[in-house]
This record gives sequence, structure tokens and C-alpha cells, in this order.
Amino acid sequence: MAESHAPRRDALRALLRDRDLDALLVVDLLNIRYLTGFTGSNAALLVTVDGDDVFCTDGRYTTQAQRQVPDMRHVIERASAPAVAAEARGRVGFESQHVTVDGLDVLKAATEAELTRAPDLVERLRLVKDETEVDALRMACAAADRALADLVEHGGIRPGRTEREVARELEARMLDHGAAAPSFESIVAAGANSAIPHHRPTDAVLQQGDFVKLDFGALVDGYHSDMTRTLVIGEPEDWQRELYELVALAQAEGRAAVRPGAEVAAVDAAARRVIEEAGQGEFFPHGLGHGVGLRIHEAPSLAKTGDGTLAAGMAVTVEPGVYLPGRGGVRIEDTLVVRDAGPELLTLTTKQLMVV
Amino acid sequence: MAESHAPRRDALRALLRDRDLDALLVVDLLNIRYLTGFTGSNAALLVTVDGDDVFCTDGRYTTQAQRQVPDMRHVIERASAPAVAAEARGRVGFESQHVTVDGLDVLKAATEAELTRAPDLVERLRLVKDETEVDALRMACAAADRALADLVEHGGIRPGRTEREVARELEARMLDHGAAAPSFESIVAAGANSAIPHHRPTDAVLQQGDFVKLDFGALVDGYHSDMTRTLVIGEPEDWQRELYELVALAQAEGRAAVRPGAEVAAVDAAARRVIEEAGQGEFFPHGLGHGVGLRIHEAPSLAKTGDGTLAAGMAVTVEPGVYLPGRGGVRIEDTLVVRDAGPELLTLTTKQLMVV
Repeated sequence: MAESHAPRRDALRALLRDRDLDALLVVDLLNIRYLTGFTGSNAALLVTVDGDDVFCTDGRYTTQAQRQVPDMRHVIERASAPAVAAEARGRVGFESQHVTVDGLDVLKAATEAELTRAPDLVERLRLVKDETEVDALRMACAAADRALADLVEHGGIRPGRTEREVARELEARMLDHGAAAPSFESIVAAGANSAIPHHRPTDAVLQQGDFVKLDFGALVDGYHSDMTRTLVIGEPEDWQRELYELVALAQAEGRAAVRPGAEVAAVDAAARRVIEEAGQGEFFPHGLGHGVGLRIHEAPSLAKTGDGTLAAGMAVTVEPGVYLPGRGGVRIEDTLVVRDAGPELLTLTTKQLMVV
Repeated sequence: MAESHAPRRDALRALLRDRDLDALLVVDLLNIRYLTGFTGSNAALLVTVDGDDVFCTDGRYTTQAQRQVPDMRHVIERASAPAVAAEARGRVGFESQHVTVDGLDVLKAATEAELTRAPDLVERLRLVKDETEVDALRMACAAADRALADLVEHGGIRPGRTEREVARELEARMLDHGAAAPSFESIVAAGANSAIPHHRPTDAVLQQGDFVKLDFGALVDGYHSDMTRTLVIGEPEDWQRELYELVALAQAEGRAAVRPGAEVAAVDAAARRVIEEAGQGEFFPHGLGHGVGLRIHEAPSLAKTGDGTLAAGMAVTVEPGVYLPGRGGVRIEDTLVVRDAGPELLTLTTKQLMVV
């Protein structure tokens, strides 16, 4: 992936020039990973308009940093952010959305540069994924798809197992398919628990007739997949079929609204309208979706209160849900990439109601 | 654990009174977990000297919050920190080590209270663990001990396996013994890789004669264990025995220096002296240890440059290492609790050189 990082720093330089900044002091580790490929737990980075970039980490990562970040000067220092600030000259932006109030004092004491707020510059670049990033997301989604297929095929979702056991098997199968880790704490929610939007797996035992809601993802090369499917154990009852079809229709409408230029609030509305018209609006208590990438939740937020529009190359989830307290709930979620020709679906598991 | 949280908030109130603060606005999720037991991913908390505390989370966690935080008033709002700030009155401290420069603007706009910096108050309380916390650490350490014992007993460390396979089995066995997750990305480093202090497991294959360094831990009830052991596959060579004995002696000296009132730099020095006197000081490039609790790395730092003294109830690691580039390295690490009668060892795996 190393060849993809230099163009990202060049794109950042263009943003700096627009803002009359001589450099950006980058302290957020995900932003540093995006700009350099470095995966350690301590680093700071100075990106300058002149291309005289400086990278700092501590002695634990000397070798790793030489391998992952071969193309700039390194400083080895435990207090990485002030060490990089000391190298800065001129009018230097800092990530005011990440630097703490106390941290800014430390930076100011370490530098003669003029520090000025410059929030969200790298995050703005990260909104639109390049093809290296989409490839990683595609692999992460494929690991999740394959894990669920294996789990179902091997009878992993059956009466008598606990939610926790199902979650563990699902996670182990994602590792089998190339995930470095689950991309977040998996949700496995059976029966009435499926009506809890963010339920943590318990020792509750799966029963015949249960909805089983699985919300999970894989982490590949730092990128997160995110998918939810809701299955039924045994023959579904009518209310379960109806609830499922309602959410599936809302999800399809939401996906259809995903296109470059669409207002994020309008995408949310496209799905929400279906659920509201069925009189179930009060049981859909969360936003429709969110951006996904180096973070499991990142911009844009596809929500009623969301601002802005979609652009080609953004990666987002579409995940409506209807949760009937004490009975059960359904959520259906895909990860997809905004494309001019219509969204590219990365999570490929069927959205037909799966009966196991 | 719920009954342990109210006394912690009372201890915080005493710190607030000392500082003439009417309240503390708590935004750090670990500090909130410590003070309330809440485990969700969005929350803010106002702790007032009058005991009129306010908790805020968003709609995903309404039910969970009622269960985990039954003993105060709740506000349900996505932007939790400003929502809690709006409830604040008088002279209100904020966590300036966690609130970002941009975040402070949002808080100021949301409240009529006088916001004032109050860093590290909850962290100060968290330095000394109560017995509920030590119990969780003990369980976390036990899960790691048992997992390693199982791994060794079942021949999991053998020529032909990859570092990654060993890491996965070790992690799975921690889950079998009650861990919610590994407490950090496990290190399994074989042969020359053992000379890399923080090596990530690769597809490198274990060989006869290798050092195998395992640095890993379990997460139980939010508390992290941390342990390193270095084994040899097959009969150790003399240099391996000598290196191991050197590090084991340094580690024993470090543990012996752990007592209430000891300067943290002196604890580091007690172990480092052994390694320096053997002429290997340059190959011990990191601090001796760190506090451990709700974070895998927290205060105090047992390092040359560390400030302050140990107190009874602190939980720390003692982990000297000597790393010979291109040959191999040894690190031996325990988690222990500072006690008046001498440190209480929580990681109980033998420190005799294990040969597998």
C-alpha cells in the first residue's frame, strides 16, 4: 500500500496552500496511518507545503517506522507531538478537533511556529476513498460475508446455543477468512433481545422461532466492514415476515437513494418514509447509516439531522431497523460505495429472509 | 459491581470541594465507566458536590443505561457532553486533558456555568485500585495464566507453527477462561523476531532452538492483564540461558523494589542496574513498567524519567527486557499490586525458563 500514501500527502499540501498554511501538525493516529501507512501506537507527523515532511515515533517502533514510512525524515522521541512541533516553522495548522486543551499548551511551549486551528483537513480527504482503500473495504466485507455463510452452512445458528457462542464462532470464522480482528464488538441478539438495537451477546439461549440479529464486521488492513443480517430459526410467523419485508423495503429505498450529490438527510428520509408510512416510525430510533473506513463510524452521517451531500467514492452503511420492544427487531445493513453508476455493494450476503 | 461506583463518586466530590468546584464535567468514557459502571460508547457525566449528578447517553443505550446507572438522573441526547454542560451551574471543572480545543468551544456555547480546567481528577482516583478492581485484574491475570498453561500443555508452541497461529490459539484460550477479549494485540515473536520489543505476529514459522516471546493479556470486566513470558523450543543454548537468567534477575530486583513510598524512577533503576552491570544496558531500550487497569497503559510510569512514588493499591507491570538484534530477546513481565507487606503477584505463571 506504500505507494498510495505519498499522493494523499500531496492532496493535503493542496489544502494547506488554499489556507495559507506552511504545514499541518498531524497528531491523530488514524490520520497518520492514512498519510503514511504507520500502524504503531505513538506518532506525530508534520506535512509541509515544501514537502519537507517529518515523522516522529518512539524507540519501540524505530525499525517498523523505517519499513512503513521510508520516504521522510524521522525523529525518535517518546513525546512525539511536541518533538514534531519543534521542527515546525511559519504558520502551522494543528488538528483542533483532536488536540486537547492541555495538549495545546504543550505544543505551544515546544515551538516557535504560529499555531493555528485547522480542523478536519485529513478527515475531509478521508471522506472519499481511493481504490486502495476500497480494495481493503472489499476484502473486509468479503471476510464478513464468508464468515456468515460458513456459520449458517455449518449449522452454527441453532436452538440451544448461546448468543455468545454464536458471536465467538462468527468472529473466529472472520479470522479464518483474513480478518485481523472483528471490526467492533459483534452483536448477536436472539428473540426479544433482537429488539435492543445495540445488544451485547449474553448467555441467552437461542430458541426455535427466534429472530437472530447479527451485526458484525471484519478489520482488514485497518479498514472496517459493517453488516447486519436478521435470520429466523425455523418457520417464521406472519408478523416476523411482515416486519422483515418492511425493513428490507426501507433498506432497498435507502440504497437506491445513495448517489453522488444526494443530500444525506434525503437518503435517511427515503428509507425512513417507508417505515413511517407503515406506522412504525417510532420504532426506528437511530440514523440510517454512517461513513466507514479507518474508523467504524466516520463521516458522513446519514441521519435526519445530517448535513451535506454524498460524493462518488464515499463508503457508507445503509441500516434501517424496526425494534418492537419485548417481541423482536429486524435490522438489515450493507456497506456500499457511492458511485456515479449507482452504489457498489460490498456486503454481498443475501437480503432474502434467511431461515435456519 | 454497581455498589462500588457510588463511593468513587463520593471520593471525587471530596476532590471537588478541595478545589472549590461545584461540579466536574466528565467526558472520558473510561472515567465515566469508573464512576458509574456504564459501558456504552457515548456518554457524559456531571458529578456535583451536592450529589445531584446527571448522566447522558443517546437513544441506543436508554435501556442499558437504566440498568447500569440506576442511581442518578438521565438525559437522552446524542451530543452528550454539551447536553450535560447545559445542566451545570456554578464553577464547573472540565477534563482539559480530554476535551479538545474545538470541543471546549461547543461546551462553552452550551452552558452558563463557569468552565475551568480540572485535569486528571478521576485519573488520580483510578491510580489506587479498590478491591473490586483488584478482583477484576486478578481474574484477567488468571485467564492469561490459564491460557498459557493450556497452550503449552497441548503442545501449541512447536516447530512448524506460525507466530500468528500461536497468537490465535492463545487468544482463543483466554476467551475460554472468561476473557471478554484480548487486552491488546498479542505479541508472539519467534527466533530473531524476539529481539523486536513490539513485534506483531507474522507468518514466520517457529523453529527448533528459537526463543518465543509471548506478551499478552486478557480483558475482564473492563480491566486489563499484561504478562510476558519467553520460552525456548528444545534445549536452550548457553547464551539463551545466560540472557534469560540476566533478565529474570533484573525482573526479580524490580519486583523487590515495588513498595509503598518507592520512587518510580528508583524501581526502574533497581532492575536496570542489573542489566547495565552486565554490560547490556543499551539493549534495554524501554521503561520498566506501567500502571494497568481500565487502560492497558496508565499511570504511574515506572521509567527513568518517571515522577512520583508508589502507593498501596496501585497495579503495575514489571517488565525488563534485553534484545540482541538479529539473535533474539527476552522479556519477563508480571502484573502486580503494590501492598504494604510486599507486592501481590497477579500473574502466577512460572518465571523459570520454560522449555517446550
